[in-house]
Amino acid sequence: MSVTLAPSGQKMPLVGFGLWKIDTRSCADQVYAALKTGYRLLDGACDYGNEKEAGIGIRRAIDHRIVARADIFLTSKLWNTFHNPNVVKTIAKRQLADYGLEYFDLFLIHFPIALKYVDPQDRYPPGFYADGKSTIEYENIPIQDTWKAMEDLVDCGIARNIGISNFQSSLILDLLRYARIRPAVLQIEHHPYLVQQPLLDLCAQENIAVTAYSSFGPQSFLELKMNKAEQVVSLLQHDTISSIARKLNKTNAQVLLAWSTLRHIAVIPKSNKQARLEENLNCLDLHIDSEDMKAITALDKGLRFNDPHNYGIPITIFA
Amino acid sequence: MSVTLAPSGQKMPLVGFGLWKIDTRSCADQVYAALKTGYRLLDGACDYGNEKEAGIGIRRAIDHRIVARADIFLTSKLWNTFHNPNVVKTIAKRQLADYGLEYFDLFLIHFPIALKYVDPQDRYPPGFYADGKSTIEYENIPIQDTWKAMEDLVDCGIARNIGISNFQSSLILDLLRYARIRPAVLQIEHHPYLVQQPLLDLCAQENIAVTAYSSFGPQSFLELKMNKAEQVVSLLQHDTISSIARKLNKTNAQVLLAWSTLRHIAVIPKSNKQARLEENLNCLDLHIDSEDMKAITALDKGLRFNDPHNYGIPITIFA
Repeated sequence: MSVTLAPSGQKMPLVGFGLWKIDTRSCADQVYAALKTGYRLLDGACDYGNEKEAGIGIRRAIDHRIVARADIFLTSKLWNTFHNPNVVKTIAKRQLADYGLEYFDLFLIHFPIALKYVDPQDRYPPGFYADGKSTIEYENIPIQDTWKAMEDLVDCGIARNIGISNFQSSLILDLLRYARIRPAVLQIEHHPYLVQQPLLDLCAQENIAVTAYSSFGPQSFLELKMNKAEQVVSLLQHDTISSIARKLNKTNAQVLLAWSTLRHIAVIPKSNKQARLEENLNCLDLHIDSEDMKAITALDKGLRFNDPHNYGIPITIFA
Repeated sequence: MSVTLAPSGQKMPLVGFGLWKIDTRSCADQVYAALKTGYRLLDGACDYGNEKEAGIGIRRAIDHRIVARADIFLTSKLWNTFHNPNVVKTIAKRQLADYGLEYFDLFLIHFPIALKYVDPQDRYPPGFYADGKSTIEYENIPIQDTWKAMEDLVDCGIARNIGISNFQSSLILDLLRYARIRPAVLQIEHHPYLVQQPLLDLCAQENIAVTAYSSFGPQSFLELKMNKAEQVVSLLQHDTISSIARKLNKTNAQVLLAWSTLRHIAVIPKSNKQARLEENLNCLDLHIDSEDMKAITALDKGLRFNDPHNYGIPITIFA
């Protein structure tokens, strides 16, 4: 199951394996396991700090003839400190070199935040702080300049598709005014506590595919000890989700993923357990009826976890 | 009482008279009455369709020596169909000619929406629809190009300050990356049902003054028969507001306005009654204690009325 990306016509699988928070020590093995299990979409980023290890896993799977490069849809992301158009190609090539691969299927602007350049030799991945500790320093690079450099990545074959992540609607409308190559994908936090229906509708209207991150809602943020996540009912134990899961003889996780994929929104869960890897991939078999779909959507609380503010970072991009 | 606008050092009064929905037949008299009552900030826009009449009222007040031009802080706004940088100066001059004045104190981009140009000879004000009825047609003008033209207005003395309205935080952050002249003001919908604290915090951090429109919340939208406004408790009758008003021996309207001005957020109410004009202006005398201020802020519902979607216009700028 896949969605067709409008600008290129390329297909993107609806279920992928997300590399956020995957430990460098297990990353190669986990990526290899995911590919062996049948995952064909991998979602990485400079900021996740594990692109080298992910690359080892991918190349091992290719060497073992589990997959060919052409079967994999590899996404990565441009970090905030690399928005300068003079830097975009260099860093994208460095990221590709980390993977040991020739091209990205999709390359996203990770956040609409242009921060001061940090030399990868000094610190990599650089994170949010100019001094590595507490100082935020913007760099005066408009998104338009960065987007032109992203378009160049398509022109020279480094990325087959380009897109955006964590963008608000008015910024997307502005981007569409100057984009020579339109964004193929918007990646956003999306779960029943944060539905963002008007943003989804805008993407549908503008032929931009959507990838959901943090499909299990608060779950991803518990290990980060985020207060806001600890204070709400887990979606993996929520009555509404549980009763639908019981009825279908599936898990809550599968229901949460299928709630997205049934609406053609890609998901990128991770797991370090083989059973879970399979379970998540098999969400594509679920049929949730429209009444249950509505009941899940009705859980919306406008509750966003992955906001810089929730990490104590004073950057406002979701107001 | 005023706020100092960071880029120019000019002062903007904290209470103004808003021209939205003021009938052309009474507009000149109402503007004259407002100035006579002591209002020094007037908030107009091309889209309100009454700039000529407002100008008559202003010039009559100047002729009668009620005010000098220099005493008035006149705001107007660039409409969506005039975002093309080749058009900005022409239309701003036309708007000034309508007022019969030489300069604006503040000129705002009304919405972050670039629509196809409509010749003022064909239809003025042009509204949202390219055909005057139902068709939305964007024009590919990035906000950056429009902002450069706005900066030119300052350079050539047409506007003393420039700013933005209805912008989201990520679009503001992007604007700040390329602005040669920073926005002096952000004008937004702001009332106890739509507090937008993170956006206010961003403006404070970036030295952008804030003007609140629709300070009475649903009230402004009742005459437009907006369902969403009819379905909530009026803030003019809300228990929390009423009990604070009774305690201070003031009206609910005054409490709602003072809740903004005490936080240095300008307000722009209107009224066609002399007593109300005075009452609104006198909101500056109120002292609301911090506990009551918090109680008002706690009414926040994230409830936005002035969204194109609420008028059936399929443009998404607040998602």
